[in-house]
Amino acid sequence: IQSKLPKVGTTIFTRMSKLAEDYKAINLAQGFPEFDCSPDLQKLVDKYIRRGKNQYAPMAGVMALREGISQKVFAATKTEYHPETEITITSGATEALYVAISTVVNPGDEVIVFEPAYDSYVPAIEMNGGIPVFVTLDPQYEYIDWEIVNSKVTEKTKAIIINTPHNPTGKVWTESDLKQLDFLAEKNSLFVISDEVYEYIIFDDLRHVSAASIPSLASRTFLCGSFGKTFHVTGWKVGYCLAPKEFTTEFRKIHQFMVFSVITPFQFAIAEFLKEPDHYLSLSAFYESKRNIFNEAIKDIGFVLKPSEGSFFQNVSYKNLSEEHDLVLAERLTKEGGVASIPLSAFYGEETNFRVLRFCFAKNDDTLLRAAELLNKVV
Amino acid sequence: IQSKLPKVGTTIFTRMSKLAEDYKAINLAQGFPEFDCSPDLQKLVDKYIRRGKNQYAPMAGVMALREGISQKVFAATKTEYHPETEITITSGATEALYVAISTVVNPGDEVIVFEPAYDSYVPAIEMNGGIPVFVTLDPQYEYIDWEIVNSKVTEKTKAIIINTPHNPTGKVWTESDLKQLDFLAEKNSLFVISDEVYEYIIFDDLRHVSAASIPSLASRTFLCGSFGKTFHVTGWKVGYCLAPKEFTTEFRKIHQFMVFSVITPFQFAIAEFLKEPDHYLSLSAFYESKRNIFNEAIKDIGFVLKPSEGSFFQNVSYKNLSEEHDLVLAERLTKEGGVASIPLSAFYGEETNFRVLRFCFAKNDDTLLRAAELLNKVV
Ligand SMILES: CSCCC(=O)C(=O)O
Ligand SMILES: CSCCC(=O)C(=O)O
Repeated sequence: IQSKLPKVGTTIFTRMSKLAEDYKAINLAQGFPEFDCSPDLQKLVDKYIRRGKNQYAPMAGVMALREGISQKVFAATKTEYHPETEITITSGATEALYVAISTVVNPGDEVIVFEPAYDSYVPAIEMNGGIPVFVTLDPQYEYIDWEIVNSKVTEKTKAIIINTPHNPTGKVWTESDLKQLDFLAEKNSLFVISDEVYEYIIFDDLRHVSAASIPSLASRTFLCGSFGKTFHVTGWKVGYCLAPKEFTTEFRKIHQFMVFSVITPFQFAIAEFLKEPDHYLSLSAFYESKRNIFNEAIKDIGFVLKPSEGSFFQNVSYKNLSEEHDLVLAERLTKEGGVASIPLSAFYGEETNFRVLRFCFAKNDDTLLRAAELLNKVV
Repeated sequence: IQSKLPKVGTTIFTRMSKLAEDYKAINLAQGFPEFDCSPDLQKLVDKYIRRGKNQYAPMAGVMALREGISQKVFAATKTEYHPETEITITSGATEALYVAISTVVNPGDEVIVFEPAYDSYVPAIEMNGGIPVFVTLDPQYEYIDWEIVNSKVTEKTKAIIINTPHNPTGKVWTESDLKQLDFLAEKNSLFVISDEVYEYIIFDDLRHVSAASIPSLASRTFLCGSFGKTFHVTGWKVGYCLAPKEFTTEFRKIHQFMVFSVITPFQFAIAEFLKEPDHYLSLSAFYESKRNIFNEAIKDIGFVLKPSEGSFFQNVSYKNLSEEHDLVLAERLTKEGGVASIPLSAFYGEETNFRVLRFCFAKNDDTLLRAAELLNKVV
């Protein structure tokens, strides 16, 4: 059998989670919360299952959920997405991203991707015959150099993928970034795919600037979101894509044959849970405290803490401590130190070694403190 | 935006279900059960949600479920699929089929498809640049003419898709069919994609012959199944693909970037429910009775009943009654008669009109009787 994705092996998340399990290490590698979702949300699922909401949902999603999303996005951005024609519920943001990329990318098309990048973008581009063109973030994750982005645009550039708050770095795109993106996309007629799954996890009084908040940008964008991070249910796989009507028409043609529809009772449950904005607006404070606890506890190890403005992740540089490749160090810390992390090199297309590790702090406070103690011992 | 699937409109299932809703007609169109799943299964979901099984499942699926599937398939076929390397849990059989097709089909490859065909096969082939090559079933659905199939094989033929029990006709492939398929696939080095979602819904003491039951055939096959039909939960979207190790490796590369993983608590719940074979082995008798009730009630209308050997579906011919196109008749019966069905023409690649309607009898007995009464009035 001929491989369509010859470069792809087991993902780093699966590998490091397995290593963590084998060595009984604390898993700060794969990004998922250690704590559970709200019991109220659990009860809602049970309610809708008992009410018999167990058959096919509409292909585009349960209307109550599409309406709820439309309202929350309108409240945040003043942009109105029409539930009937512009919102599609997907099997997690992963499916939303894959379908959005499949909708616009044809063989030979170039797609601009910021590196380090979440690991699904490039295979999705390549499955559609596209060519990823990388823009590497500055090592401090402090700014996006839009001149460099601009210089990567060619006649073949079809789309640009952004991700804010950004996994793996925790960088949050600014309003100015989004405006420059808008300008660039407009000038070059690019589609924009915006991965905003960490939209409610933003620190230090920063603000999430959604691609939906700039109307001209929204008119070129597939906005991909999800409830997995927002409601502590990464295993429920309910995501969505917001896009202008014509985009959504084509998006749904692919979605309907790829998965057809998404799990019905969860859609109803989330639609009801979503009505209370506190259920997501309190999330930033919750995670900011975790970031602070973790950072305070590891600050004397000798790691250099990179800025983490949002997301589940704290990146640390160890350039001053060791020459080791980050994959080697991540494996050693798991096996000998009892703490699993993700080596940043896993998020780059080419072999690199910036000597940076990513820790996930979506864990209970005592887990974070125990992990810090273990790290203090071994580093 | 340029369409990747220019021929695709809204699926016939969505259209007819909407029409049924608008006209308050009995929906015998889209194939889903009217009755609910077992309360025991509902309680199992609640149990695992409360136990906190709400984060990412392993990419390939929860091991307990993969083991359960391996055991049930071994019991039925004596073929052993290794849970670790040969079984992948998918977002319904739709995703399994889409990924299997994506795994083997490259631009220019031909794929043999039996017509009438479930509507997702052809778009999945086309999304991968493949070319569907149709073999039309005989109008009585009585046999597969393997000489015709053989005559369609060219140097470009890459795969063949089968579906038994067959949607929309209810035809069940025989052991002889599977042997001829095996011979043909072997001779021409074809991949086989076998859609067996109705495996437990077989009538008149016929027997489901799985592609897994012939070892040499199994070694070329992606076997796609699901629990939606088996446990009356079409909206839960838990399916699977069984395939030899090398196939599964490539299958998972695509699956992991298309949806990554499947809803965790349902996988645990189904794994536990699956341990009791009665939960699925009683299904044929249950549905056979429904088929009989429906057929008895409509037998004097003037429709010619086609054989329905399995699945949710009864096809009827009305050639003797009317010249109308089946789409026109299906719409008229919905609007004026109060009963929605699916016109068979929707399952053919080219415009046809065999004047056949498909009725779904996965409904409560009194619904079937009411539908028959309404049909008696209008036809
Ligand atoms: C889909 S597994 C990866 C989870 C995640 O988002 C991450 O760890 O970056
Ligand atoms: C995925 S909607 C179609 C349901 C079905 O299997 C059918 O009606 O044929």
